[in-house]
Amino acid sequence: MSISNTSLLQRSLASVWHPCTQMKQHEMLPLVPIKRGEGVWLEDFDGKRYLDGVSSWWVNLFGHNHPHIKQAITAQLDQLEHVILAGFTHEPVVRLSEQLSILTGLGHSFYASDGASATEIALKMSFHYWRNRGPAGKTRFLSLQNGYHGETLGSLSVTDVALFKDTYAPLLRESVTLPSPDWRLAEAGESAEQYALRCAGFAEEYIAQHHDELAAVILEPLVQCATGMAMYHPAYLQQLRDICDRYQVHLVADEIAVGFGRTGTMFATEQAGIRPDFICLSKGITGGYLPLSVVQTTDEIYAAFYDDKVTRGFLHSHSYTGNALACSAALATLEIFAQHDVLNSNRSKTKYLNHQLAALADLPVAHLRNLGMIWAFDVAPSQPGFQQHFYQAALQRGLLLRPVGNTVYFMPPYVISEAEMDWMLEQTLHALKETI
Amino acid sequence: MSISNTSLLQRSLASVWHPCTQMKQHEMLPLVPIKRGEGVWLEDFDGKRYLDGVSSWWVNLFGHNHPHIKQAITAQLDQLEHVILAGFTHEPVVRLSEQLSILTGLGHSFYASDGASATEIALKMSFHYWRNRGPAGKTRFLSLQNGYHGETLGSLSVTDVALFKDTYAPLLRESVTLPSPDWRLAEAGESAEQYALRCAGFAEEYIAQHHDELAAVILEPLVQCATGMAMYHPAYLQQLRDICDRYQVHLVADEIAVGFGRTGTMFATEQAGIRPDFICLSKGITGGYLPLSVVQTTDEIYAAFYDDKVTRGFLHSHSYTGNALACSAALATLEIFAQHDVLNSNRSKTKYLNHQLAALADLPVAHLRNLGMIWAFDVAPSQPGFQQHFYQAALQRGLLLRPVGNTVYFMPPYVISEAEMDWMLEQTLHALKETI
Repeated sequence: MSISNTSLLQRSLASVWHPCTQMKQHEMLPLVPIKRGEGVWLEDFDGKRYLDGVSSWWVNLFGHNHPHIKQAITAQLDQLEHVILAGFTHEPVVRLSEQLSILTGLGHSFYASDGASATEIALKMSFHYWRNRGPAGKTRFLSLQNGYHGETLGSLSVTDVALFKDTYAPLLRESVTLPSPDWRLAEAGESAEQYALRCAGFAEEYIAQHHDELAAVILEPLVQCATGMAMYHPAYLQQLRDICDRYQVHLVADEIAVGFGRTGTMFATEQAGIRPDFICLSKGITGGYLPLSVVQTTDEIYAAFYDDKVTRGFLHSHSYTGNALACSAALATLEIFAQHDVLNSNRSKTKYLNHQLAALADLPVAHLRNLGMIWAFDVAPSQPGFQQHFYQAALQRGLLLRPVGNTVYFMPPYVISEAEMDWMLEQTLHALKETI
Repeated sequence: MSISNTSLLQRSLASVWHPCTQMKQHEMLPLVPIKRGEGVWLEDFDGKRYLDGVSSWWVNLFGHNHPHIKQAITAQLDQLEHVILAGFTHEPVVRLSEQLSILTGLGHSFYASDGASATEIALKMSFHYWRNRGPAGKTRFLSLQNGYHGETLGSLSVTDVALFKDTYAPLLRESVTLPSPDWRLAEAGESAEQYALRCAGFAEEYIAQHHDELAAVILEPLVQCATGMAMYHPAYLQQLRDICDRYQVHLVADEIAVGFGRTGTMFATEQAGIRPDFICLSKGITGGYLPLSVVQTTDEIYAAFYDDKVTRGFLHSHSYTGNALACSAALATLEIFAQHDVLNSNRSKTKYLNHQLAALADLPVAHLRNLGMIWAFDVAPSQPGFQQHFYQAALQRGLLLRPVGNTVYFMPPYVISEAEMDWMLEQTLHALKETI
């Protein structure tokens, strides 16, 4: 049976409920059926190619169809695809945990598959730690305005995106959010650092009053991605670390989107020189190949669960915890980092695209911002509907970008070449001119 | 570097936080490091083999190192490993959704990776449906005593396992549980069916009074696995379906553990001749190869979200939703079902082991029960600690079984042979005699 774009998109609409989508919008914006991938490119069933400018929801690091990751999964398939991780263990999960510990300084790794599950695990672990060790009564979580940590009910409770959250309010535990240190919210004349420090002041004020009921603060370090790549100064993280230490509150770094080199360092917290109590990782961890998430924490927190009493243990589980195939993809991903000096090579790419972005100067865009391999700017369109119009205009030109409201961002696979960056920017400029 | 059991288990304890485990217990019960799998067998680094009598947490259907599933994943690796499923689609996810729809009669499939995430999705969808369509105020969920639906906070709210839940009570939304139709709870002289009908009466009483605030009832059809393979009569499901219809309450069938042939039919609800409003699937869906979960629902429920208004859509997402590699493993799994008449072949195996289980007659066991490829019985041990002692005794004999309390169960991969069943039973008898 020969497959065309038209036939497959109709079949998809008839049977698949797509994520994060009001499905009726696909009457106007056709779904794109993808046949294969290669490097930064996706190809549909009619032979048209699209540059994957969002790394397929920020998961792909080294391009599609990557020989090294493929080879690692294929080799693992000949050894062991999966075994229960309760009472049993295997080499890929041990090696991955050891290597992640070296990178983050956090000694123990607890696995799941969805990023939201990692958030849930970190929140439950923090809560349970205080229950085991005291002080008693530390049961609440604090998060940031415009933060995103997933959409299962526990993670949605600490997410602050009205579009995802408001509908489900009756199902959610009440949560307090701190002002976002997003530097776009600074007052005139106030630097990003000054504003970050002012926000840390708000945080301290709240935590000083409520620390006896607070288990943890959860945040996305340096970039709040889901609400439009809001960036902030690392001074905020330094202050928060200090405040959390002084008031006995855990700091949970959700690096699901920003980890694995995306912000220019392996993990975003490194830029603040701090170590969180928990780190949540997923997305790029397998190079965009397979679902895998992990929560890492300190040996001290791990020790608080190590007891003769069963119920003091962390009895959470997922069937596919520590899946050997996903772990092998993650190990291959870390090997690529080690063998190809990826962070250094990315620095040149960052510099290159930053230079080329001068081409935006004549357009009504503001807050051009960059950190590592994330670029974003805010567009002041002359008419409503910019988000969809721009998405469609870029797509027609073979460029996959997904604006968040009026924010356009680039988050390409790290293997993007200078020529591909030029092409991405050129199509972006055309699409902007067509839709602003 | 040569790896031994001893070296890898020590490294695992130093870096991996294992699921569902009080880690201190591993001082007495050594972790088993697995090197490879083949059929029903797992092999450690010292060359010792273990029969995987729990299908690696109920996920493996056709044995480890299965050539057809391997081949499907390898072939998909050459096409497309993953693409964002918002705005995009691909052949494996479409074909899988179509095939699942034919099997369940539920028209649309929404994907995640963890089973707990599937529970969360079903609960959110049900709640959101009533919000979109009315009557207003239907915000609560009903579940069964001794039910298990996962351990993220939303799914833990409808789980009734004190060991997993009590610690986190302050984080959970209050939930009402209905009496379990587990036939072991029937009164003397009451049949399984009579007890199921009596329990359905309790359900009707509650639902009649509270339907205006109830969105859905969630249950594991026919077998409550996590609390010890509690089995119940399908009349309960028939009654529940009828009650839910009359009172406008959704019925969510959590077939994460019991789906894909485990109870003798492809899905457990088939034995009651009913169709749920939502079905949650995971575990066996990929034959035990890769994390994948899905919620399927009716076209009518799907239609209630299809609207010009964005917020009436189901905007939930996970980065790896509809992962192409996991979908290709699932398609290969369905192909094996179709090509090898698996359900019929399993019926012979069920009959065979049921016959052989007469060997238990002289032992202090009660409530010997079977449904499809699940067998369980309850042991009356003469001293405490049976669960761990039996686990260890069986493991020393090369048999992986994980009793739940004093319940011993078999849930082997479907490819187990008669000789392997005999061997499994023989080791079980020895281990029982050593530990009762």
